[in-house]
Amino acid sequence: MLKKVITINGVTRTVIVNPETSLADVIRKQLGLTGTKVGCGRGQCGACSVIMNGKVIRSCVTRMKRVPDGADITTIEGLGTPDNLHAIQLAWAVHGAAQCGFCSPGFIISAKGLLDTNPNPTREEVREWFHKHRNACRCTGYKPLVDAVMDAARVLRGEITKEELAYKLPKEGRVWGTKQPRPSAIAKVTGTLDYGADLGHKLPFEKLHLALVQAKVSHANILSIDTSEAEEMPGVYRVLTHKDVKGKNRITGLITFPSNKGDGWDRPILCDKKVFQYGDAIAIVCADTEENARAAAEKVKVELEELPAYMSAPAAMADDAIEIHPGTPNVYFEQKIAKGEDTKPVMEKADVVVEDSFYVGRQPHLPMEPDVGFAYYDEEGRLVIHSKSIGLHLHHAMIAPGLGIEPEKLILVQNPAGGTFGYKFSPTIEALLGVACMATGKPVFLNFNMYQQITYTGKRSPFFINLKFAADKAGKLLAMESDWTVDHGPYSEFGDLLTVRGAQFIGAGYNIPNIRGLGRTVCTNHAWGSAFRAYGSPQSEFASEVLMDQLAEKLGMDPLELRYKNVYRPGDTTPTGCEPDVYSLPELIDKIRPKYQEALERAKKESTADKKRGVGVSIGVYGCGLDGPDAAECWVELTKDGVTVATCWHDHGQGADMGCLATAHEALRPLGIKPEQIKLILNDMSVCPNGGPAGGSRSQVVVGNAIKAGCELLLNAMKKDDGTYRTYDEMVAENIPLRYDGKWAAPCTACDENGQGNPFPTYMYAVFMSEVEVDTNTGKTQVVKMTVAADVGVIANKLVVDGQIYGGLVQGIGLALSEDFEDLKKHTTLVGCGLPYIKDAPDNIEIIYVETPRELGPFGASGVGELPLTSPHASIINAIYNACGVRITELPALPEKVLAGLKAKEAAGK
Amino acid sequence: MLKKVITINGVTRTVIVNPETSLADVIRKQLGLTGTKVGCGRGQCGACSVIMNGKVIRSCVTRMKRVPDGADITTIEGLGTPDNLHAIQLAWAVHGAAQCGFCSPGFIISAKGLLDTNPNPTREEVREWFHKHRNACRCTGYKPLVDAVMDAARVLRGEITKEELAYKLPKEGRVWGTKQPRPSAIAKVTGTLDYGADLGHKLPFEKLHLALVQAKVSHANILSIDTSEAEEMPGVYRVLTHKDVKGKNRITGLITFPSNKGDGWDRPILCDKKVFQYGDAIAIVCADTEENARAAAEKVKVELEELPAYMSAPAAMADDAIEIHPGTPNVYFEQKIAKGEDTKPVMEKADVVVEDSFYVGRQPHLPMEPDVGFAYYDEEGRLVIHSKSIGLHLHHAMIAPGLGIEPEKLILVQNPAGGTFGYKFSPTIEALLGVACMATGKPVFLNFNMYQQITYTGKRSPFFINLKFAADKAGKLLAMESDWTVDHGPYSEFGDLLTVRGAQFIGAGYNIPNIRGLGRTVCTNHAWGSAFRAYGSPQSEFASEVLMDQLAEKLGMDPLELRYKNVYRPGDTTPTGCEPDVYSLPELIDKIRPKYQEALERAKKESTADKKRGVGVSIGVYGCGLDGPDAAECWVELTKDGVTVATCWHDHGQGADMGCLATAHEALRPLGIKPEQIKLILNDMSVCPNGGPAGGSRSQVVVGNAIKAGCELLLNAMKKDDGTYRTYDEMVAENIPLRYDGKWAAPCTACDENGQGNPFPTYMYAVFMSEVEVDTNTGKTQVVKMTVAADVGVIANKLVVDGQIYGGLVQGIGLALSEDFEDLKKHTTLVGCGLPYIKDAPDNIEIIYVETPRELGPFGASGVGELPLTSPHASIINAIYNACGVRITELPALPEKVLAGLKAKEAAGK
Repeated sequence: MLKKVITINGVTRTVIVNPETSLADVIRKQLGLTGTKVGCGRGQCGACSVIMNGKVIRSCVTRMKRVPDGADITTIEGLGTPDNLHAIQLAWAVHGAAQCGFCSPGFIISAKGLLDTNPNPTREEVREWFHKHRNACRCTGYKPLVDAVMDAARVLRGEITKEELAYKLPKEGRVWGTKQPRPSAIAKVTGTLDYGADLGHKLPFEKLHLALVQAKVSHANILSIDTSEAEEMPGVYRVLTHKDVKGKNRITGLITFPSNKGDGWDRPILCDKKVFQYGDAIAIVCADTEENARAAAEKVKVELEELPAYMSAPAAMADDAIEIHPGTPNVYFEQKIAKGEDTKPVMEKADVVVEDSFYVGRQPHLPMEPDVGFAYYDEEGRLVIHSKSIGLHLHHAMIAPGLGIEPEKLILVQNPAGGTFGYKFSPTIEALLGVACMATGKPVFLNFNMYQQITYTGKRSPFFINLKFAADKAGKLLAMESDWTVDHGPYSEFGDLLTVRGAQFIGAGYNIPNIRGLGRTVCTNHAWGSAFRAYGSPQSEFASEVLMDQLAEKLGMDPLELRYKNVYRPGDTTPTGCEPDVYSLPELIDKIRPKYQEALERAKKESTADKKRGVGVSIGVYGCGLDGPDAAECWVELTKDGVTVATCWHDHGQGADMGCLATAHEALRPLGIKPEQIKLILNDMSVCPNGGPAGGSRSQVVVGNAIKAGCELLLNAMKKDDGTYRTYDEMVAENIPLRYDGKWAAPCTACDENGQGNPFPTYMYAVFMSEVEVDTNTGKTQVVKMTVAADVGVIANKLVVDGQIYGGLVQGIGLALSEDFEDLKKHTTLVGCGLPYIKDAPDNIEIIYVETPRELGPFGASGVGELPLTSPHASIINAIYNACGVRITELPALPEKVLAGLKAKEAAGK
Repeated sequence: MLKKVITINGVTRTVIVNPETSLADVIRKQLGLTGTKVGCGRGQCGACSVIMNGKVIRSCVTRMKRVPDGADITTIEGLGTPDNLHAIQLAWAVHGAAQCGFCSPGFIISAKGLLDTNPNPTREEVREWFHKHRNACRCTGYKPLVDAVMDAARVLRGEITKEELAYKLPKEGRVWGTKQPRPSAIAKVTGTLDYGADLGHKLPFEKLHLALVQAKVSHANILSIDTSEAEEMPGVYRVLTHKDVKGKNRITGLITFPSNKGDGWDRPILCDKKVFQYGDAIAIVCADTEENARAAAEKVKVELEELPAYMSAPAAMADDAIEIHPGTPNVYFEQKIAKGEDTKPVMEKADVVVEDSFYVGRQPHLPMEPDVGFAYYDEEGRLVIHSKSIGLHLHHAMIAPGLGIEPEKLILVQNPAGGTFGYKFSPTIEALLGVACMATGKPVFLNFNMYQQITYTGKRSPFFINLKFAADKAGKLLAMESDWTVDHGPYSEFGDLLTVRGAQFIGAGYNIPNIRGLGRTVCTNHAWGSAFRAYGSPQSEFASEVLMDQLAEKLGMDPLELRYKNVYRPGDTTPTGCEPDVYSLPELIDKIRPKYQEALERAKKESTADKKRGVGVSIGVYGCGLDGPDAAECWVELTKDGVTVATCWHDHGQGADMGCLATAHEALRPLGIKPEQIKLILNDMSVCPNGGPAGGSRSQVVVGNAIKAGCELLLNAMKKDDGTYRTYDEMVAENIPLRYDGKWAAPCTACDENGQGNPFPTYMYAVFMSEVEVDTNTGKTQVVKMTVAADVGVIANKLVVDGQIYGGLVQGIGLALSEDFEDLKKHTTLVGCGLPYIKDAPDNIEIIYVETPRELGPFGASGVGELPLTSPHASIINAIYNACGVRITELPALPEKVLAGLKAKEAAGK
């Protein structure tokens, strides 16, 4: 042990520490200052940044033996407090720079370190600083962070006051459509919001820390599991295997499609007979500390018979491939699409036909917060599981039978989540926590490290697509033929649903009268497929949007104008044969056209031999909803102080609280209540009704409509004959109920066997434009500007919507250029997976909104979250071609791939 | 478990808690907010006060199931921060209201609760509030706390600004003699100072919590100890007994007197053959939590053969009493006093002789912070023990052989201490921590609860005194005969030293030419005797000061004038036959005389049949030093930023940091450095030289002189020929050493076999005057005013010295009227032990200083800490007699005792 006297946030404290312990652990676990977050744990994300003796350091990789005696340390708690924010914290809130907020303390501390040394930085210096200090953000696209630093610097230099910077509610008192910061912003920027790991550390002492024994192979039969040595390890309380699972030991995929050949009971909670993928959980060690639990987990002996591992769909589809789940074929679901006439004759007769193959791979979600959760029994004897779940009621149904618990005895709660981007549409550790809590009767806590987060949570499922367009010589699309193969990993949950997305979104945005195609879901031994933002569309639209550019080239047309000619106009239908909700794509293209012309000229002017510039466009379309029937519930209650709204509007970090508040406030405006009078109770099944999962950009539309409905019921009840409203006291005096259940169901139908139907109540539309620079010596692509014209309906909150778009675009850059999770050895860290840092994103991002009110959206709103990741990567890939003539059809477009293209082109003398 | 959403200090947090856990534990251990302190753990001290939903509550007795969901809680961390103090915190610092500081967060929070509801309270309303909310303080005498609240209220009402209230260094830059708040004040009032329990909870997770198996009988042979069941209890790591102690398993008393019949090796670390007193430690359970350790401790089976328990000196001296330590007589030490001529003939011839018997009992120390400490191995393999020790080097020598550790492998460190008042002059848990750390190799943490603090730490040793004065009819004292018996409990450490105090302080203050007497130390089975403020003098001077009043009555003289006639004047000698350092008692009496006259008149005027008022006086004298040879060391080093001073000036809470700073700053004034440039390194044996223990009011004199000497050596080295001083850079350039060892030794001699000698370098003098009101219906005495005229030499810091005097006086009220630790069943809580609350203390306390410079004190200073508890209780007892004619000679003067006196008087027709 070392005794050190250090000054933390101006307070001199004596600490007794282990010399090998990280400063982050001492700050968080010994001193209880959980404002400092630990993301990657290896210095790649900067969430743990603190200032030590004037320098910004990453505390997760700073061992206490390297902390000098007398060190002066500043953590986020040392900046400002909720009622007296530091200028940087205020600017962070005002600019919506805290989305999930997990990286905010680290960024804010880092910004403080910058402004302490350079009070007047340029935007580029801010970007350089964050890049150098490895501050990573997965939500915001970085631009709002730079905006915030620039404004904070102005405050600190005395050029504006904090009051001037602060957000002010407009005079008319409206929240809807404004830039009001989300309710959780203040807690996020001050480090006072407790995420799962923070809450876990603050659990009562008797909690058990869990560690998983995980498979290190991708496919095997389990011969035996020996826990005896592990049980004797220090601090171990129990070691659990499948034998300790009370129920069916399976997570059910809640199969919705009768044609699915699996039964949906294919995912074990704890592996019993087989290992299906790398990382599969085989045993759980319950111990007093995470360190002891992990050390004991190493001692569990698992005897395996290795089986051939099918690491991609083609391998699993091979004739000699064995069934991964014996009894179920590896190709377990198929989805046709058939719209209009047979395409074969159309293709044969068409003026122009283009065809190509496309591959979009296993994009990793890379949230800054690794998966984390805990479980305990509540006072009523119910098992309560807290996690990052974005579908509490959904996951409840998926895990209860496997656990063997009566449904009414299981409660799920969502903790504040440091980003999910969809991976938490799947249960991850919920059932494991449940097993451990049920077996031990004690509170249990499981905190993945970043390696586990990356290697053992679901990923975007790769699509292998063959696509063919027929058009007339004027560029009018006549037919499309599609074939898509979905590598969904070993677990079937939602695999059929995802496959339907191919039918819905290959060619979306365009009126294609005749379509034929077939998609299939394939079971493999690579990462299980989970939801990821824009679910299915980045794969589907990549194919159609790149092929559109190929068609334009063949036609000798401008790619934007080709699109303009084909986008939905009244009378047109979507690939699923239904009418779009609105027809805003022509207007969106009209808005972007002048920018596009300028960009083309700029690219020409700024291209050099070594640095080729290019411009690419793409159309993005996505539907809001669960696909077919979709509904949500809430309750709204008048209280003495205002109105309470309760529902499950799950928060990935996107701003569920703000959506809920803005919607409720708008609905309640006749009462003239202030936003702070609306109390939100969210995402706790013990009190909140089913709002449905937070996926498919459905929440604002579906949950929003339920909230609106609930508020309207309350208003109706409060309304007097003279049109004024009863007060709380009057309601009580007249014995009128105070609480109302708000419900809403989307008037939608799932697609039929031909992929035809009206699956979504509203859609979102965008035109993306990317300007890139390709280094012809290295093949490296830099996105220098992105422009997007978007119609997400009436905007509920400008900060949230801007933030979603910025963040989605930069995830699109990652998808286009660097992100992958194919190699189980290499793709295991944030850097290894190709996470974009700030200098990988352009500072220049321009958003143009067209706010077409949606009939089925509350107050005209549609969704937003998926839209910016539908096809921005296609615009980048198209821009690369525009810049240097290299057409990439398999993502990511790594420098070596582009370089190889350049060399091939050179060899061909083109 | 319960999930609660509560707002703490403006931050809404989710907590998962056990419904039976206290709010205090959740705040401290789960949320890491250790500003809230736990003292008694049962709602009697208010250290744990927090504001919940607008009400001041004691969080230690508030179970989480009683905390409403949504509760709004404010802790000390929610008021101000070190650089932005709340007005109450500022006022607390400015008024020296934080001494040990352990009660400060609770008081400050309580005061906030008051001022939130009553912004303009009267002093009496403040007192009522604190009394009602059970806010207890053992250091300050309460008056400064009321002063602080009144000033804070003025700030909050806007009548003065915080800047006006704040302390300002005088223009000439002098610290010495000012009211500068102590360096630790800011940390204390903001709750950011970590005491032992706070540091313990923040130790790395692998720490073991210790619980003691303690004797529940007072005297027994141990037949067997069975730890087997305890070892199987949950969370238990090891159960340790005497067999696990590597060394001699004894704490040595470091015998200094050759005539002592014991060998000083009588106190076991862990009992092996015998139990000597209630609470003796028999085994140590090492477990993961305090709760588990305590539960397992209940399961250790100890087979005992009970022996007769000698619960007082007379019982242990009876002819049939067995030897408590076989081989050593129960009366193991005697001290004679023989000064001047044989007293027998003087007594026979004297005009007036008075004689009586007196008893002062087992005053408990009652610090607000229970005993606490921890131990670990440092990086150099040394055993480091942190505790409340106020004598690190002393305790090192006392425990090292018992532990069986090489002295250089043992380091002791003092934690910030929440009050000791002397009990920590004895080792308490240090050796137990050492045993546990050595046996397990792990960090270990032992935190007594208040029951253990009270029942198993040393107490003031009772004196049974027979005393006789002879005087001439003019009131001049001619002779004194004394006999005193000291009940020192079972352990001999310092028992001889204490017995010598009878010779030194019975009759102190008066020139008594002829003295004969004998004192003895007796081993008993009641609480072991430890140091307690004023050590020996409250017993000794109680006898002589009450007997002086009896003499005055017999002579028909005024008690003050009788004293005036006899106090030291030039040519007089102390009872030990030496000259006093100064002769300030006549002046002190002169100062108090007019107050005394007024008081007598006031008492006469305000007395009623039911409420009798009276006035009493007493003289208090105490020496500063360890008794005989005494020395201290420090080092002083010039640094780039200023000067560093290192020593052991241990802090009970009295203000060691301020004494050290004021002395060093005064010595370094020729350099013109600012106080903040002086860095103090205190009370860590690994870096600080031996300053000696903090007892006998020696620190300011002995350690102060060492600091002065060290600073002077540095100044000499820095001085240039022209009288100016070299800078740091010049010193380095000229290769002149930067660090100097300061040493000082007192030119004193211990008393000889006749009790004669010159044991102390300086003395302190006081005249106490108490005004009381006795309720003749209940016998209850209320002290309505106290006045003290004091000469503690030149005052080093006015806030510290005022604070010591206020606090000592109120401990004197407790000693006089309520405090006891005789009954092992009843005297086990703060309330049970008779702790004075605020309304038991007068708000009206007046201090008159005479600052006679001391030749041997640094810059003329003497000590202060012991003085206010030398004899204030005697003045109260004399005032009771003055009020109602009842003479109490055995303390405490409980209402029933006074009532019995009143009834006896009535029966006797007086």
